[in-house]
Amino acid sequence: MFRLRAPTTMLCKSKVVEKALSRGKVLTIDNMNPHVKNIEYAVRGPIVIRAGEIEKELNAGEKKNFTDVIRANIGDCHATGQEPLTFLRQVVGICAYPKLFEDPSLPEDAKQRADRILNSCGGRSLGSYSDSAGLTVVREDIAQYITERDGIPADPANIFLSTGASEAIRNVMKLLMTTLEGNDKSGVMIPIPQYPLYTATIAEYNAEPIGYLLDESNNWSLSLDELERSLQEAKPHCKPKAICIINPGNPTGQVLTRQNIEDIIRFAHKENLFIMADEVYQHNVYAEGSQFHSFKKVLTEMGPPYSEMELASFMSTSKGYMGECGFRGGYVELINIDPQVKAMFTKAISAKLCSAVTGQAAMDVVVNPPREGEPSYELFKTQKDTVLSQLAEKGRMVTSTFNSIEGMSCNAVQGAMYAFPNIDIPKKAQEAAKAKGMAPDFFYCYNLLESTGMCVVPGSGFGQKEGTFHFRTTILPPVQKLGEMLGRFRDFHVKFMEQYS
Amino acid sequence: MFRLRAPTTMLCKSKVVEKALSRGKVLTIDNMNPHVKNIEYAVRGPIVIRAGEIEKELNAGEKKNFTDVIRANIGDCHATGQEPLTFLRQVVGICAYPKLFEDPSLPEDAKQRADRILNSCGGRSLGSYSDSAGLTVVREDIAQYITERDGIPADPANIFLSTGASEAIRNVMKLLMTTLEGNDKSGVMIPIPQYPLYTATIAEYNAEPIGYLLDESNNWSLSLDELERSLQEAKPHCKPKAICIINPGNPTGQVLTRQNIEDIIRFAHKENLFIMADEVYQHNVYAEGSQFHSFKKVLTEMGPPYSEMELASFMSTSKGYMGECGFRGGYVELINIDPQVKAMFTKAISAKLCSAVTGQAAMDVVVNPPREGEPSYELFKTQKDTVLSQLAEKGRMVTSTFNSIEGMSCNAVQGAMYAFPNIDIPKKAQEAAKAKGMAPDFFYCYNLLESTGMCVVPGSGFGQKEGTFHFRTTILPPVQKLGEMLGRFRDFHVKFMEQYS
Repeated sequence: MFRLRAPTTMLCKSKVVEKALSRGKVLTIDNMNPHVKNIEYAVRGPIVIRAGEIEKELNAGEKKNFTDVIRANIGDCHATGQEPLTFLRQVVGICAYPKLFEDPSLPEDAKQRADRILNSCGGRSLGSYSDSAGLTVVREDIAQYITERDGIPADPANIFLSTGASEAIRNVMKLLMTTLEGNDKSGVMIPIPQYPLYTATIAEYNAEPIGYLLDESNNWSLSLDELERSLQEAKPHCKPKAICIINPGNPTGQVLTRQNIEDIIRFAHKENLFIMADEVYQHNVYAEGSQFHSFKKVLTEMGPPYSEMELASFMSTSKGYMGECGFRGGYVELINIDPQVKAMFTKAISAKLCSAVTGQAAMDVVVNPPREGEPSYELFKTQKDTVLSQLAEKGRMVTSTFNSIEGMSCNAVQGAMYAFPNIDIPKKAQEAAKAKGMAPDFFYCYNLLESTGMCVVPGSGFGQKEGTFHFRTTILPPVQKLGEMLGRFRDFHVKFMEQYS
Repeated sequence: MFRLRAPTTMLCKSKVVEKALSRGKVLTIDNMNPHVKNIEYAVRGPIVIRAGEIEKELNAGEKKNFTDVIRANIGDCHATGQEPLTFLRQVVGICAYPKLFEDPSLPEDAKQRADRILNSCGGRSLGSYSDSAGLTVVREDIAQYITERDGIPADPANIFLSTGASEAIRNVMKLLMTTLEGNDKSGVMIPIPQYPLYTATIAEYNAEPIGYLLDESNNWSLSLDELERSLQEAKPHCKPKAICIINPGNPTGQVLTRQNIEDIIRFAHKENLFIMADEVYQHNVYAEGSQFHSFKKVLTEMGPPYSEMELASFMSTSKGYMGECGFRGGYVELINIDPQVKAMFTKAISAKLCSAVTGQAAMDVVVNPPREGEPSYELFKTQKDTVLSQLAEKGRMVTSTFNSIEGMSCNAVQGAMYAFPNIDIPKKAQEAAKAKGMAPDFFYCYNLLESTGMCVVPGSGFGQKEGTFHFRTTILPPVQKLGEMLGRFRDFHVKFMEQYS
């Protein structure tokens, strides 16, 4: 019904040479952890590796049809030109180098935030370990943020900081996994297309992915029939334990309606599933009429028995309007969790000591930004609004271009920072791909990269309905660059279709 | 032969209440991942949790025999008063808030370092993801550092940055694990006493710990006979795949001689074991005549076949003279690894995107500190020398106090930042402990905490020879505080012995 694996041809091209070198090694490809071998992660897969090679070739003076690689493969905001929020960097800068408290050019509200964070650090130093769950004040500020967002109280004791949301997702998913073989393996429902961290983690922990197809014809929403279908098909093969939802969607950019979320919650309740809500794009909602509804708010407002359901909600410093990926700030809020399980979770994360305290400080600014009346408010608001309005505009640019090209269609980018257009790949191109051992959309993206320097990720890296082809592109490059990229893209596509029609 | 588990009594005291609450949960203590349940991590275990409670009681005005808790349970340098290195914080501060390039009060060499790091970042921002293995310049600087340290070339392509050394250790160990049951489980040799990250990781990945006892009577060195014994005893139960060595030692503070390292390498070669060398304390060597020898240098200088052995060497920003734990900087150098395995390692870490780039910047300063002639050199050297000479002095203070107390003995702190004294616990105290369901040394440390506020970790949390009792204390508190702590300790010990003799 769907494909998850990208071809590994490119990674393995020197297999023969390597085989000879590996004689006598203790640890070999044949005896290593088989679950690690099963991990796939296309966002940094072979196409992206090739993009890096092309950049080196260009730097070495090689002549090509283009002068630079446009990395639209990953939601890496600052790398594509977005400016950091001044206030966030001032706070982290002061925390890192406290002599800056004496710098009169830095605003008082930044100094107050930094002072508050450092007061929560051992020895008032960012260089001390925090509690395993994170600094107390940051957890309090996150709880306050969630309380204000949802109008429903949040408890700092339920908040756990992490090294990016990725680590929190792994930490929670790990709890659900067993290493039992066969029909007793834990099953985890994931959207198809999905963000490949999910399949990577499921593979690593030897669980069973249960892919439910998002409905492309209905703006990538979740259909109850499809949830039922996928679960019933999976039940003979595994023990379904959890459902993952990404909202706003990655790679698909949809924003779920409240009705859709209620339906999913009822389904999860009926099937006794733990809900994992990946809500890292909660600030990235652009489409008119679209609104972010947290799973926590919806299930709480639905009342019992739904309000008693177990839920993990994930957030990150990497997305939103701040885009601070490199700080690796993230958290999970655990709701209605069995206290003994929570104790085990706390113990498991304590063996890793704590997440980067710099990332925790960045997260504190995200959940506790300058308020109206504070010295930094105006600048902060301008920067935030600029980033979000540009993202909205770029989302529109991308979709209208794709929809204007014959043989392509693309749902509106309601949220997040990606478009996931559908491409009709001609039979001849599919055959050419097959001859090279590549999936058709991989072949398309590979040619796109070689011809234009535009680096996107084939839909097969996220999973897609059998017989359909897509790619994921970010909407991050600056407006002018994005326009240029879409121009290069259109030319490539026309030529590609001519060649293979 | 040795005990690894600390009693869990304290964590489970409200089991009955929790059981009632957990009715109807999807995820319960009975159906969760059993390997996560098996994790133990005493460095943040029940005694440390109790220390936090006592701090709250003191803050709430409760009267005790002491006015503060002394946290000697964890190597958290800044939390115990060590000042950050000015240069390191200047570099990170500039990277975080680049407007500081214009600040004339900041030294040129710090600006140059920051400029170089930012040039390696996408969009010149710390907020961009780095390559999964880390920023190129940081990997180059690490390779240069290792080359200078060992006089043997290191390749940046073998260096992988991580969120603290802990994550690198977990990433490498994961490769070695299989989830096979019974006699096919992977076995990993670990020192006893060990740093509990090792047993925690082994438990989580369902492998078999093979504990080899360090020789307390010979300053915690490794005896070949004991390596043989432990391995032969384990072979019927598992497939031994790796040997972990911590040098300088944690919790034991020994620094291995070159001869001892050569013996271990020969043993590992004979038994076809992958070597994991935890060398995070490589800057922490105090004893006269002691010297740090990297496993890489020794095995390379031994020539073939030893120089072809697989080795992973770990390093961190958290220890040494910098003690930047909160930045979570770390790396592993992978030597002689099968290229296909290395590709799998790269793929597995790429699914986690990258380690915190702030930690990578901090690591860059650690491996590329101010050089003679640069503006920051004098201050840097003074700060570094002060920290290291104070640690040496505090190591002597701690051991001489412990050795002056009847019924105690303590090997010299040759390196790292811990002492691991041996305590004779009287029969009557052992019985009292048993009556409370506690290990004798847990009982001792628990009483020490309640009576004096001194928080140390029982030897049973690290493993120890059956029938012997220890605790681990850091040597980190400032000299005066440490003196006070040792005074409190002596009084407690005398009373404890009187009470139970």
